[in-house]
Amino acid sequence: MNAATPADHLVPQATTRAVPQSLLDTLKQRFGAQFSVALAVREQHGRDESVFTVAPPDAVVFAESTLDVSDAVKLAALHRVPVIPFGVGSSLEGHLLAVQGGISLDVSRMNRVLQIDADDLTVTVQPGVTRKQLNEAVKSTGLFFPIDPGADASLGGMCATRASGTNAVRYGTMRENVLALEVVTASGEIIRTGTRAKKSSAGYDLTRLMVGSEGTLGVMTEITLKLYPLPEAVMAASCSFASLADAVNTTIQIIQLGVPIARCELLDGNTVGMVNRHSKLNLPETPLLLMEFHGSPEGVKEQVTTVQSIASENGGNSFEWALTSEDRTRLWTARHNAYFAGLQSRPGCRAISTDTCVPISRLADALLDCVEEANAAEIPYFLVGHVGDGNFHMGYLIDPESPKELQVAEALNTKLVHRALALGGTCSGEHGVGFHKMDFLLSEAGTGAVDMMRAIKQALDPHNIMNPGKIFRL
Amino acid sequence: MNAATPADHLVPQATTRAVPQSLLDTLKQRFGAQFSVALAVREQHGRDESVFTVAPPDAVVFAESTLDVSDAVKLAALHRVPVIPFGVGSSLEGHLLAVQGGISLDVSRMNRVLQIDADDLTVTVQPGVTRKQLNEAVKSTGLFFPIDPGADASLGGMCATRASGTNAVRYGTMRENVLALEVVTASGEIIRTGTRAKKSSAGYDLTRLMVGSEGTLGVMTEITLKLYPLPEAVMAASCSFASLADAVNTTIQIIQLGVPIARCELLDGNTVGMVNRHSKLNLPETPLLLMEFHGSPEGVKEQVTTVQSIASENGGNSFEWALTSEDRTRLWTARHNAYFAGLQSRPGCRAISTDTCVPISRLADALLDCVEEANAAEIPYFLVGHVGDGNFHMGYLIDPESPKELQVAEALNTKLVHRALALGGTCSGEHGVGFHKMDFLLSEAGTGAVDMMRAIKQALDPHNIMNPGKIFRL
Repeated sequence: MNAATPADHLVPQATTRAVPQSLLDTLKQRFGAQFSVALAVREQHGRDESVFTVAPPDAVVFAESTLDVSDAVKLAALHRVPVIPFGVGSSLEGHLLAVQGGISLDVSRMNRVLQIDADDLTVTVQPGVTRKQLNEAVKSTGLFFPIDPGADASLGGMCATRASGTNAVRYGTMRENVLALEVVTASGEIIRTGTRAKKSSAGYDLTRLMVGSEGTLGVMTEITLKLYPLPEAVMAASCSFASLADAVNTTIQIIQLGVPIARCELLDGNTVGMVNRHSKLNLPETPLLLMEFHGSPEGVKEQVTTVQSIASENGGNSFEWALTSEDRTRLWTARHNAYFAGLQSRPGCRAISTDTCVPISRLADALLDCVEEANAAEIPYFLVGHVGDGNFHMGYLIDPESPKELQVAEALNTKLVHRALALGGTCSGEHGVGFHKMDFLLSEAGTGAVDMMRAIKQALDPHNIMNPGKIFRL
Repeated sequence: MNAATPADHLVPQATTRAVPQSLLDTLKQRFGAQFSVALAVREQHGRDESVFTVAPPDAVVFAESTLDVSDAVKLAALHRVPVIPFGVGSSLEGHLLAVQGGISLDVSRMNRVLQIDADDLTVTVQPGVTRKQLNEAVKSTGLFFPIDPGADASLGGMCATRASGTNAVRYGTMRENVLALEVVTASGEIIRTGTRAKKSSAGYDLTRLMVGSEGTLGVMTEITLKLYPLPEAVMAASCSFASLADAVNTTIQIIQLGVPIARCELLDGNTVGMVNRHSKLNLPETPLLLMEFHGSPEGVKEQVTTVQSIASENGGNSFEWALTSEDRTRLWTARHNAYFAGLQSRPGCRAISTDTCVPISRLADALLDCVEEANAAEIPYFLVGHVGDGNFHMGYLIDPESPKELQVAEALNTKLVHRALALGGTCSGEHGVGFHKMDFLLSEAGTGAVDMMRAIKQALDPHNIMNPGKIFRL
């Protein structure tokens, strides 16, 4: 898997730092069976869902406790060797790739739900707990954790990339839903940020500095999250439209009216087709909004009435209801599998996923031209969107062996990002920067802000061992 | 006002840095009438609502633009002289006090609402705009800005302290409601953080690092905020209880049930008496919850039914409704003036206000003992609370000339803070640290986390010129 590919020129060219045998020996001694240099294990930890291939990390440590994390980081720090935290490997922008070599620190075995405080609507978990596992664990309390990026990602990974997903339009993102953290710093020290209190003005917001830092400032070893009461009533529906513009304008009006919709997802007709084939569904292959409403029975009814009237004014068909909880699960599973449905539609392809997010009034401006451009470029793609937030993904489905297709996809992505920035938006709504979007971040934030990020990085990780080569060039 | 007072020992002992005459001359030259060394002007900029007295700043610059701010900071940086941003002077923990001398940078003239994007529910303002001014400016759009710390604070100050107030239980705090900033850094450089997009995973969250940094990392010169549609229906009511415990338990149950209450404020009977006298009201002088409900007419009705039933189970009297918008304004104005009502209740006194915030289930544990302790200490106080968030304020009303009373109040505060920390809470829900709570922050966050804050400060402000001597000791 590490043969040269057309995407190689997109990988940052940095000197791989030598990992001394003495470090490997010490790690072996300290971690025993929790340590591996086997190629298969390293390769499994040296890739994510991106198109990039990089030499795998030199070794993998399977941490089972905060102390394990601290010891591994301390040993790596002694030798100034990179440490790359690893959850389930579902990131999309090269976040996990060992671009400078080093140790992959797998926290997936740190998967205990440590404390459920149902009376406070909070829970504390280890970073390897996945979102589905968490929701299983809290089910009996009548509470749930809404953030849902599609993949059954680890909560550590979701923190690291400031993930969001389908429910964010109502419940916010990881930014709004992490209360407190335990973090192992670049020197191996264990610190705590935040408390279980709902709000605080006590000093710098280290919690939110860590959330979205992509493993470059430390390793999260405990995460305290907000939970929410399961809504009394849930209704889900799909609504199809004659054109993308109609579906997008419906979304814009729903948000502008302040409807507290819980999910508002767009798929274009082409993507509905992929989803139908992958998930054996029979949805009309035209632009589609998938929606969910949470609240009291009366409240949900009010939301539905408002949204139906907006949709109908925009030429939407009547709602198709997912009446049972099984129907709802089927619908959302299909939506979540859109990424895989896309990949399956072109065997052997890889997806380059865009991730812009714009102010809601600019959504049509941001989205419609991108679709025309992709059509004109004759490149296959899927289109899904958390459109209630102004966030959508074009997934260009490229042949990873074709330099031409890669170039076309990157050119489309670049154009799309610069359009979003010009509309007051961001290059990344939820996937993060990794190394793939470093130039986009620079265009978005400017040298001054990125220099501030660099200064923070250098202050907190002076030897640049925490996931180096990501977010910005040092 | 700068004679020695019993509170002096609480002021950090730092060397005042000399402000060279050449700097004053250059500032005078650059800023003309926007520059002052008049004692009255300096004294007005050398105090806040805290009990502390410190020598006033050496000079005041009235900035009228971002460029003014940048130039003032650059000149101060050349001479390594402190710069203390100043809004309206309503902070409570010594934030604005020139503990190391230097220049007060008054941004109150930067009071333009720069851009209202009603279609995106966002607005961009200069830092001197106050929250009331903002709400006047956006009134005609059908939108409002909910964060309401009581005082008509400047939005720059509210950002700096991560303010919240009565509406935070539903709408969040400044942490959740600031989308983007323009910031003048410690070197005078102008940078931008964030965009108008609702969410982003693009790099470190500099916006939230600045929010709550109390002027120690830079000066905010533009602020982009979220707005909300004015609720279709608003209802406000008061409900009185036989005991504080009943009122607190009602609150806990309201939150645990997930009622989206917009305001849920507690006053004890003693404070209701102060408010009655100050605001010429006639509320029953027993523990009181003041509540407000926002939503659709049906939604508000549902909330009210639920809350009435919880209150009644806890022995609450029937709701007294504030039926008209004038009645509501009178009720909330009275609540907002509780601080001044407290001060007025004891002529010549100053208030030491506590600010702990705990997980909601621990609110009774955090609050009830504090009241008993204050009663036992025979110190007059007011008690108000944003109890829906687990946040409350005891305002100890002390004679500023009495070392004994100061000592008693500080001892009560210390005990109260350590109780809140033991319950999983924070020493500051919304007022910030200033210099008064530096030791509390250390107890709460631990040396490791405070060292991380120090490292960030040193990286971003290497000469320690931005509001030095606040949040932590360097």
